[in-house]
Amino acid sequence: MLKYDEVATKMEAQIIADGLTQGDKLPKLTELMAKYAVSKSTIVKALAKLEQRGLIYQIQGSGVFVRRPKLDEHINLINNNGFTADMVKHKMTAKVLSLKKIAPPKDMIKYFNGDVKEVYEVKRIRYLDDQILCLEESYFKTSVVPFLNEQIAQGSIFNYVRELGIAIGFSDKYLNVIELSKKEAKLLELPEKAPALTIEETYYLTSGEAFDHSKTTYHFKNAKFFIQSTT
Amino acid sequence: MLKYDEVATKMEAQIIADGLTQGDKLPKLTELMAKYAVSKSTIVKALAKLEQRGLIYQIQGSGVFVRRPKLDEHINLINNNGFTADMVKHKMTAKVLSLKKIAPPKDMIKYFNGDVKEVYEVKRIRYLDDQILCLEESYFKTSVVPFLNEQIAQGSIFNYVRELGIAIGFSDKYLNVIELSKKEAKLLELPEKAPALTIEETYYLTSGEAFDHSKTTYHFKNAKFFIQSTT
Repeated sequence: MLKYDEVATKMEAQIIADGLTQGDKLPKLTELMAKYAVSKSTIVKALAKLEQRGLIYQIQGSGVFVRRPKLDEHINLINNNGFTADMVKHKMTAKVLSLKKIAPPKDMIKYFNGDVKEVYEVKRIRYLDDQILCLEESYFKTSVVPFLNEQIAQGSIFNYVRELGIAIGFSDKYLNVIELSKKEAKLLELPEKAPALTIEETYYLTSGEAFDHSKTTYHFKNAKFFIQSTT
Repeated sequence: MLKYDEVATKMEAQIIADGLTQGDKLPKLTELMAKYAVSKSTIVKALAKLEQRGLIYQIQGSGVFVRRPKLDEHINLINNNGFTADMVKHKMTAKVLSLKKIAPPKDMIKYFNGDVKEVYEVKRIRYLDDQILCLEESYFKTSVVPFLNEQIAQGSIFNYVRELGIAIGFSDKYLNVIELSKKEAKLLELPEKAPALTIEETYYLTSGEAFDHSKTTYHFKNAKFFIQSTT
C-alpha cells in the first residue's frame, strides 16, 4: 500500500472514531503532518484520495471539511471493496447455490475483452443481518483467481482475492430496474413481477485487465443505495 | 475555471473526438505538455481529474489508458452536471407541471441543514428523445437561485444556474426501488405498481452549502444507469 493510501485510511478511521459529521473542520495541514509524521505532499495526496471517496470537501483558503451523510444500511455504489468492507457494522453472509469451474458462457466473453479461457461460476444468495439482500451470479477468471471453494464463497470473495495479493483497480457498473422472473422471485422470496434493481459489474485489476463479471439482483425492500459525488 | 480543469475538459473532448476505446493508450506526458502548452504539473492534475471521472486509468511505468465502456443512453450517476450535459447526443426536454415560490415543506428543511427560508418548488416530467424519462420534484433555495420561470424549467435548470456563475460542488444521492403509486404511474404512463428507481439528491455549492434537493422517479423501461468506479 502506498504511503498516502495508508494515511488516507488512518484519517478515514479517525473521522469515524471522532464521530465527525457534515461540515466539521479537519485540523490544519501542519497539524496533520505532525500527527501522521509524513510530508506535506503525502497529506495533500491523502486528502485528494478522501475527497475522491466523497469523505471530505476542500475550500481554498478556508480548510478541509467532512462529508458524512447517514450511510448506515445504505450500500455505497462508488466503492470497489465489495459489500463486506462497506458494511462493517452489519453481518454479511451468503448461501452458495452453485460453484463450478466452466468454460466462459458466450455472453460473458465480451466483458473480458475476449481474453478468458476458464471461469469460476458462483451463484449465491447474500444476506444482510439475516435478511435477503440479493441474488448474485459471478464469473471469476481462473487465470487470476486460481482457486475458490464453497467455504470461501460463504464469506467475502473479495477479501479472499485481496489476501491473495491481487490488486483490484476499478469497475464499470450498469444499473437497470426490472420485474422479477418467477425463478428470481422464488429465490428472493418475493412475488413474481416484484420490482428489482439489477447491477451488472465488471471488475478490473490495477493493470486494466478484467477479472470478474457479475450480475446482482437486489431485494427491493431490503437494499438501499448511496452515492457521494465529487466535482 | 482552473487551468487543469480546462485541460481535462479538452482532453476528454479529444478522447471522444478520436473515438478512443477501452485500453487505448494516451500520448506521453511530454507530448501532452506540448499539445496543450502547459506545465507537467498541470497535465498531472488534469490526468488525476480524468481518472477521478472514470475516463482513464494510469499504470505506473507503463502509461495512461482510456476507460470507455458503452455510455450511450446510460445516465452517468457520478456526474454533477445534470442530465443535459451528460446526454449531449440526445434531446432532453421537460414539461413543467408546476413551478412556485413557497416556504420550504417541513420534510425538506433537514436537507438544507435548517438553513432555508424560501424555495422554488418545481415539478416536471422529463423526456429523453421524446420518451418519458422521469418525474422530478426539485426544491431550489431562492437565496441561491433568486429567479426561475417556466421557460427556464423547460430546459436545463443546471445550465441556467451555472450561467448565473453559481459553482456547483458535490452531491449526495440515495437510491431506492419502489412500486409506483397510482398518481405516479399515470404521469409516467405506466401501470400502477410498475417498478421504479427513485433517486433523492442533495446538491451542494463548492462552499459546502446545500442549495437544491430533488426526488426523481425513473421510468423503468426508458432509464438505464451507469457508474464508473475508481480505486
